[in-house]
Amino acid sequence: MTPAPIPHGEGRGYIIPVGGAEEKIRDPAILARFVDLAGGRHARIAIIPTASTLEDTGERYEAIFNDLGVDRARTFRFDTRADCEREDYLHKLERATGVFLTGGNQLRLSTTLGGTPVAKVLRARNAEGVPVAGTSAGAAFLSEHMIAFGKEGPSPSADKVTLAPGLGLTNRVIVDQHFRQRGRLGRLLAALAYNPFAVGLGLDEDTAAFIGPDDRVEVHGSDAITVVDPSDVEYTSMDSAHEHDPVCIIGVRLHILTEGASFHLTTRTASAPARAS
Amino acid sequence: MTPAPIPHGEGRGYIIPVGGAEEKIRDPAILARFVDLAGGRHARIAIIPTASTLEDTGERYEAIFNDLGVDRARTFRFDTRADCEREDYLHKLERATGVFLTGGNQLRLSTTLGGTPVAKVLRARNAEGVPVAGTSAGAAFLSEHMIAFGKEGPSPSADKVTLAPGLGLTNRVIVDQHFRQRGRLGRLLAALAYNPFAVGLGLDEDTAAFIGPDDRVEVHGSDAITVVDPSDVEYTSMDSAHEHDPVCIIGVRLHILTEGASFHLTTRTASAPARAS
Repeated sequence: MTPAPIPHGEGRGYIIPVGGAEEKIRDPAILARFVDLAGGRHARIAIIPTASTLEDTGERYEAIFNDLGVDRARTFRFDTRADCEREDYLHKLERATGVFLTGGNQLRLSTTLGGTPVAKVLRARNAEGVPVAGTSAGAAFLSEHMIAFGKEGPSPSADKVTLAPGLGLTNRVIVDQHFRQRGRLGRLLAALAYNPFAVGLGLDEDTAAFIGPDDRVEVHGSDAITVVDPSDVEYTSMDSAHEHDPVCIIGVRLHILTEGASFHLTTRTASAPARAS
Repeated sequence: MTPAPIPHGEGRGYIIPVGGAEEKIRDPAILARFVDLAGGRHARIAIIPTASTLEDTGERYEAIFNDLGVDRARTFRFDTRADCEREDYLHKLERATGVFLTGGNQLRLSTTLGGTPVAKVLRARNAEGVPVAGTSAGAAFLSEHMIAFGKEGPSPSADKVTLAPGLGLTNRVIVDQHFRQRGRLGRLLAALAYNPFAVGLGLDEDTAAFIGPDDRVEVHGSDAITVVDPSDVEYTSMDSAHEHDPVCIIGVRLHILTEGASFHLTTRTASAPARAS
């Protein structure tokens, strides 16, 4: 489940986790930028509503993408693991220039798509340059290590979070969503404390991380991304804490980044937005 | 409202903000340690229930301190600013070997005690070595800059918090309480973003910061303290953010500290608890 090898001379496509509720905003700026990256009016967008249990989730996004000038936005109903083997679906999915995973329950995504040809095609297409976006549950699912579920609150405890394998487009980040709205710093810190190698991205609603081929994270949207960088963590008690115990963590770096700010996953440096004059 | 000068050769008394609910626990370990610092069985403890609107708050704490072996725990009913001028009260308050401020509303404390002889006596006694503890609203009130009120959630915005002058025993920390329980990281970050010189102490319930004469913060209690150190903050947009805007902050250091861990306010270094073997 490591990222597929990138063909020589081409860059990986953008990986775009969105914090949720981006479609409820009058000006869908995040989705418009995703459409640009997918080819603009000529994009072929594959919508995967597997996480959702609502009947019309795919159609709602088709309408939004149509409004943004995209004629070829198509819903792929992967409801069962058998659906994920269908050659007709896979053939069309392989031609997509952009993939969008809706919200719902990320365990619906991982249990349905995990280990199937669909997951393989998504990883291969992203490696070949196709942007893959996901909102809410779809955002959580994009990376190698996914927060399956957890508890709310700002500080970590030993039983705060449950991780599961995700789609695996990158292993450099662990994503959490509805971040400000649902008070999720504690579970993100707990997820990072297990093994402080990844960077935590806490995405507020209507806010997205556009993770470029160069591993630079650009912030777009109306709220903020909380970047939790454990590079300098000197100590955590996660190995010895009992189930409900609070967990001690020393040396986390934290950045709250808004529209126009960025963070580089390799150098681990944050840059401020250009000053509005 | 700067701390009173410390008499030659003596240390300031401990400043002890508590995150709240410490008296609801079967084993009041935090209050027991406060009693030790105040002189143990020979302590004369002044309880100030001004923050509370409940009739029996002072008496409840008298009973707890009696159970901890202290005969001389006495409630001072400073209900009005006129009460804070009463010579008989002030005379007795000056003889206290420990002061405890209860929870309630911190604006009751600042509006009633602020600028009165009571506030002056508390600062002078602390400078002379007497420990001063406060829980919940009482904790918020101890420092120079007090969080008066604010909104919940993990990430900061421009209208997230309102500061007011506090008792002024130290200006090195800004305290927030019921921290994990009420999701208050955002408002603490917002408070620090105004002027990143102080260290933020986010106190969970039944958890206390014992700030020693050497400015070392020792953690005691069943939960955690979130230490927010803005020493290395490179950028904040607090000066230009509009009312409801999210605020960009780059370069915060964060430590989650549990029982036995410590943080030095001068060197800004955290130390892990000794390993349980």
